[in-house]
Amino acid sequence: MRDFTGDVQWLSINTATVRKQWTLDQIIEGCARRGIRAISPWRDQVAAIGLDTTARLLKETGIGLSGYCRGGFFPASTAQGLRDALDDNRRAIDEAKTLNAPCTVLVVGALPGALTGKPESKDIALARSQVHDGIAATMEYARQAGMPLAIEPLHPMQAAERACVNTLEQALDLCDAIDPADSGMLGVAVDAYHVWWDPKLQSHIARAGARR
Amino acid sequence: MRDFTGDVQWLSINTATVRKQWTLDQIIEGCARRGIRAISPWRDQVAAIGLDTTARLLKETGIGLSGYCRGGFFPASTAQGLRDALDDNRRAIDEAKTLNAPCTVLVVGALPGALTGKPESKDIALARSQVHDGIAATMEYARQAGMPLAIEPLHPMQAAERACVNTLEQALDLCDAIDPADSGMLGVAVDAYHVWWDPKLQSHIARAGARR
Repeated sequence: MRDFTGDVQWLSINTATVRKQWTLDQIIEGCARRGIRAISPWRDQVAAIGLDTTARLLKETGIGLSGYCRGGFFPASTAQGLRDALDDNRRAIDEAKTLNAPCTVLVVGALPGALTGKPESKDIALARSQVHDGIAATMEYARQAGMPLAIEPLHPMQAAERACVNTLEQALDLCDAIDPADSGMLGVAVDAYHVWWDPKLQSHIARAGARR
Repeated sequence: MRDFTGDVQWLSINTATVRKQWTLDQIIEGCARRGIRAISPWRDQVAAIGLDTTARLLKETGIGLSGYCRGGFFPASTAQGLRDALDDNRRAIDEAKTLNAPCTVLVVGALPGALTGKPESKDIALARSQVHDGIAATMEYARQAGMPLAIEPLHPMQAAERACVNTLEQALDLCDAIDPADSGMLGVAVDAYHVWWDPKLQSHIARAGARR
């Protein structure tokens, strides 16, 4: 049988794509069997088998992380909600650190409550300002942990529910506003599913590369 | 009963919104009865009752057009398809002229065949270049007719099927590339449904206003 190892050296599995078929231990084992060297796991999948177990399985199989999914969801309609989000992001960074992730991916959040069908606000400008403030407030912790953050722009069809950062340009403008370009601590995550339509995609992939 | 006339002086009905309830003659009559002074009719609704009948009903009721829907759909996978689109846009301009429309709205089109579920291409860059060329080729006819064209950016969720122009900035960049800003012959149509998520909306409404 042909050895596909060489073909998958740059492949990383976002574990959300096989969450219905497998638990995370099964995913790690399946990847190991097929010579897939990297995964991008989700926090709930890690929690389901335990953080320590995940760390051990990764070590045993030699599989690395391409990123940790996810921090973010900064907007909230109360001061307590905003603080809770910051706490949760610090926990995500701790977990990412334990798993040796090269970065924590941020799905930044949008209108509070919208994801569960009960939007508490229609103010996307406010949500965007809370996202800015939330990332800025999280940067210090990320810096101390040595854990880079990657802002992921989502397709505008998810602008109300999941992420009010919807273009690569907007994500990079946020990066520039919050952290020096040469710090290596704040960048972007680019998913073709979310950005394929973006008329400024090419030029801003180049811009993202320069920041990286 | 309260007279609402003053409240609706800036209201225009996009006739697509009541196409399931009424034919265009019923829409015009219904608007007249309610003191609504403007509509934005669609070509198929005009065709269903006839162009001359539409023109007569508008004249009798004193109802004007805020725009004519629609030209566009420039991309095609054959040379003949591209030519057919240009012919069709010239006919749209003629109809708009007959109906005294202040502009013809362009839903520019996207991947050929995608709207009917059979995309003949995945090349959105090619579609965008065909849109540029299609509008540029239509401008001369529009100028001779004295009929301004309005590029309407659609939400990116319709980038494959209906319009590969998806932000106000992209629409205005197209305008700038094709026609001098002060000609008054090429501008944009802005629908909140399509652009509400756009992080550069505010600044580019201002930019659109300057062009207008």
